[in-house]
Amino acid sequence: MAMRMSTLFLRTLREDPADAELPGHKLLVRAGYVRRVAPGIYTWLPLGMRVLAKVEAIVREEMDRIGSQEVKFPALLPREPYEVTNRWTEYGENLFRLTDRKDADMLLGPTHEEMFCLTVKDMYSSYKDLPLALYQIQNKYRDEARPRAGILRGREFIMKDSYSFDVDSAGLQKAYDAHREAYIRIFNRLGFEYVIVHADSGAMGGSASEEFLAVSEYGEDTFVRDEHGYAANVEAVEVPQAPAVEVTAGPAHVEDTPNTPTIDTLVAALNERHPRTDGRSWTGADTLKNVIVMLVHPDGTREPLAIGLPGDREVDAKRLEAKVAPAEVEAFEEKDFAAYPMLAKGYIGPGVLGSEKASGIRYLLDPLVGEGSAWVTGADEHGKHVIDLVHGRDFTADGTIQAAELREGDVSPSGNGTLHLARGIEMGHIFQLGTKYAEALGLKVLDENGKLVTVTMGSYGVGVTRAVGVIAEDNLDDSGLIWPRNVSPADVHLVATGKDEEVFVKSEELVNTLEAAGIEVLFDDRRKVSPGVKFKDAELIGVPTIVIVGKGLADGVVEIKDRRSGERREVALDALLAEVQREIADHDDAR
Amino acid sequence: MAMRMSTLFLRTLREDPADAELPGHKLLVRAGYVRRVAPGIYTWLPLGMRVLAKVEAIVREEMDRIGSQEVKFPALLPREPYEVTNRWTEYGENLFRLTDRKDADMLLGPTHEEMFCLTVKDMYSSYKDLPLALYQIQNKYRDEARPRAGILRGREFIMKDSYSFDVDSAGLQKAYDAHREAYIRIFNRLGFEYVIVHADSGAMGGSASEEFLAVSEYGEDTFVRDEHGYAANVEAVEVPQAPAVEVTAGPAHVEDTPNTPTIDTLVAALNERHPRTDGRSWTGADTLKNVIVMLVHPDGTREPLAIGLPGDREVDAKRLEAKVAPAEVEAFEEKDFAAYPMLAKGYIGPGVLGSEKASGIRYLLDPLVGEGSAWVTGADEHGKHVIDLVHGRDFTADGTIQAAELREGDVSPSGNGTLHLARGIEMGHIFQLGTKYAEALGLKVLDENGKLVTVTMGSYGVGVTRAVGVIAEDNLDDSGLIWPRNVSPADVHLVATGKDEEVFVKSEELVNTLEAAGIEVLFDDRRKVSPGVKFKDAELIGVPTIVIVGKGLADGVVEIKDRRSGERREVALDALLAEVQREIADHDDAR
Repeated sequence: MAMRMSTLFLRTLREDPADAELPGHKLLVRAGYVRRVAPGIYTWLPLGMRVLAKVEAIVREEMDRIGSQEVKFPALLPREPYEVTNRWTEYGENLFRLTDRKDADMLLGPTHEEMFCLTVKDMYSSYKDLPLALYQIQNKYRDEARPRAGILRGREFIMKDSYSFDVDSAGLQKAYDAHREAYIRIFNRLGFEYVIVHADSGAMGGSASEEFLAVSEYGEDTFVRDEHGYAANVEAVEVPQAPAVEVTAGPAHVEDTPNTPTIDTLVAALNERHPRTDGRSWTGADTLKNVIVMLVHPDGTREPLAIGLPGDREVDAKRLEAKVAPAEVEAFEEKDFAAYPMLAKGYIGPGVLGSEKASGIRYLLDPLVGEGSAWVTGADEHGKHVIDLVHGRDFTADGTIQAAELREGDVSPSGNGTLHLARGIEMGHIFQLGTKYAEALGLKVLDENGKLVTVTMGSYGVGVTRAVGVIAEDNLDDSGLIWPRNVSPADVHLVATGKDEEVFVKSEELVNTLEAAGIEVLFDDRRKVSPGVKFKDAELIGVPTIVIVGKGLADGVVEIKDRRSGERREVALDALLAEVQREIADHDDAR
Repeated sequence: MAMRMSTLFLRTLREDPADAELPGHKLLVRAGYVRRVAPGIYTWLPLGMRVLAKVEAIVREEMDRIGSQEVKFPALLPREPYEVTNRWTEYGENLFRLTDRKDADMLLGPTHEEMFCLTVKDMYSSYKDLPLALYQIQNKYRDEARPRAGILRGREFIMKDSYSFDVDSAGLQKAYDAHREAYIRIFNRLGFEYVIVHADSGAMGGSASEEFLAVSEYGEDTFVRDEHGYAANVEAVEVPQAPAVEVTAGPAHVEDTPNTPTIDTLVAALNERHPRTDGRSWTGADTLKNVIVMLVHPDGTREPLAIGLPGDREVDAKRLEAKVAPAEVEAFEEKDFAAYPMLAKGYIGPGVLGSEKASGIRYLLDPLVGEGSAWVTGADEHGKHVIDLVHGRDFTADGTIQAAELREGDVSPSGNGTLHLARGIEMGHIFQLGTKYAEALGLKVLDENGKLVTVTMGSYGVGVTRAVGVIAEDNLDDSGLIWPRNVSPADVHLVATGKDEEVFVKSEELVNTLEAAGIEVLFDDRRKVSPGVKFKDAELIGVPTIVIVGKGLADGVVEIKDRRSGERREVALDALLAEVQREIADHDDAR
């Protein structure tokens, strides 16, 4: 049945909603797809339901295709399984917790590894039962600190989450590969630009892991890629060790550099009072910055860590956190300095840093600090720096750590390219969880030899409501949304214009003809609305093909407008169906 | 794609699960449709998902047919709107409440009147925008005190809830009628016995209201019906006033009846010491019992209420509560008696009851107490009763109240039948809410004359997961479930038996043939499972048509078994498709 604008639950807005930040989200609200109820919590209106249903159908089809079976776990869950895996605590404030009338602790599921694991444990006991892949499409809950960006980061959102179960890592790899292929098909069909990046698996635990990132300036994640197809999350980039170079610097010498506790003040002072002899000016890249942080280990113990890196770079918090996990990173505070009087704040250098040195603080160098390179760095005395301190000759460290921020133009880990930075939105994530959850929850099966083995798991997610948001951000212009055919709320937006009764009678006939051929129509059948308003609404709503029925009727023609290109052309009434079918076939490789 | 037993996520159980009470629910668990996660919280396994999807599709189709539009509101909701309508408090412990990381109060939606009302208010402003009907199919939450009966009364469950919006009560009536028709079509298609009963709208507020009850011995609701089609919830039954009769009793006289504070002791004492003169024995029906309860009004004030009813009946708590709502009923306690010394507990009579009498307590009679009838009742003195006290001659009350329990054989309110009691499960509920919510939340539109009018609402619900439970309870035998075709997880359960490779090859061909014709097949392709186990599983799972491929192959035949009747017959291989199609067509009037 055609959706009719005269009765559709819709009120398009000419003004941007006050609480929306992103252009696509503003349009989704203005065009009546979604509506905000509370921070990060949205209602899906009829047009939005159509798009959502199409995205869900694509996801479902591709999961079914790889033999994954659909189930549905509850969203409201008991605490105990999440206690066993420690996620009840680890999720921190992101977890919605509640108690029931009997004071039992419950939670709103953020993901369901525990529940799937326990159910499979309950039902299966032999290697013959595996492999197994299950999925659900379901409301998930995360109490985001800053639920901004509309449906891109909701507190209640729909996710497709899948889990695979295998007896060995070869099986897991196969399941992982199958999901990877399925995700490529899904995201190809959904219609936005994406990259697959190596990911750090972070709090989820596990080993191999890739993310599907929608490339978007509005992304919260930074990723890098090179010209040769390499792509990774910044956390996952392994910067190559700077090659050793021949030492050309003279002997290290300490100089007075009063009032230079920062790299900027140091560089200025060096250029003014200690100019280089080779004619170059000093830059931050010539300095070795030593940053001290406090690690907090899971058992609560605190350990200072020193990181040496070129002075023109900051420590990248995400990269550092990924490297020191499960320890957490806190600032090294005044009271900590008080406990280490050998640290001259602002002038700290390799003279005191290192397990074997005066401070006893573990000292790790970023791989950008190559052997044989000479640096200006702190002399461990207030107002003094040392010049031409050579790595390997004059100092060493306890090891290396990947912690410096990445830059446009850095050498690519792939070896033969340069890195480019971009921002992305996580749309899918595939993980080889391994045995972490199965171990914790005791999911074992008998193998071929009658021996109990721990099942190895994979976990795979697609942001379903988020996908609608990303598609919107990636498909719009100044006038409104422009849906890819696969997910458009209708195939055709048919607009009846003017006051001529014949226009409406003929339009009804055309709608019937189109629908009889299986084409979904959004029909603007409103009688007292001007053509201008109807056209504006059609542009805003963004159905890819707009058919305008009006004055041309006298000549037996209607107009077809392509929403994306803006092209308009007249077609004879009796050719409309064929034309529309051709449009659909041309633009939609997935049907 | 056929579901294959060799890979289906399923483990049938031969034993009943410990935590299941009802036969249908036991089978749903044993046959692998659902699985309990916590009290009242269930996981839907692949077979269950199939049934659920079919029920949802039927509901969706019938809602779309009456022009209702699908939307989806969040399940996680802010407190404020529910505060305005007082449901935040009224729902008591049934509401799941939680706070977010910013300490904002939130709830898990039990129903969504407030949210729909506010959204329509936000978007619409004119009578021209109406009528409007919206629905959603969604997880709902109620923290049931005793979540028993499996998916019949879950704490997380799926409900289809709809809301209608009209400018006047004629419009509301039309919307109500349309939903009523849609519900009749839905429940006819789902395949269980149901009745439509007049309902008391209870806590939801509003006026006209009917319930669709599945007739089931496991129901929590009692309803009555007569031979002529009348049916009602006990709360909604209006017992006809007993007709006035000519007074035949002599003058009232007080008698000593020591130690007779209960009806039983009184009747025994009467028959022993004050036998009737007409040869009959005294029975409880000759006595007038006066029950005192304490009403607690919404503003907190407490008011005693006296109810006079025949001594052989109890006060029906549900009927009483419905009549005194929004006041709540509490027991009249010892301390209350202390405040009313004129009440002789166990011997209270009309002598002191009534607004104008010594107690000042409002006194209402059940309509079974007719004018002119004579009673034995309390004489307001310990150990004394009065005999032949005639209503209208010797005492009157402040009014009547429908509060006595109903009995098999009572006179039907329809006037020409007798009542029969039965139990039912609420499967659907349709309400004329009227302006209650719109008034509270300020939903008004301009009418034709430019005047603001409050919108009148209807609210309509169908228990979707509950429907699966009811269908199961109503369609089973000792061997397992027997799905109605409309909701069966598959059309055909094809069982390949034996070890002959030819059987499996031929079975695959048959499955392909059936599927090519759009028939859904559950295919038992397991190689190392005995025919006995396969047949047992097929009976347990309950697909209505079972096809057995085995020894008959040599003669070019397979066997078709009708799961419900148990009939088996052989059909030629090349006739199978046509036979199965005939079975489906014969038994399924909805397709």
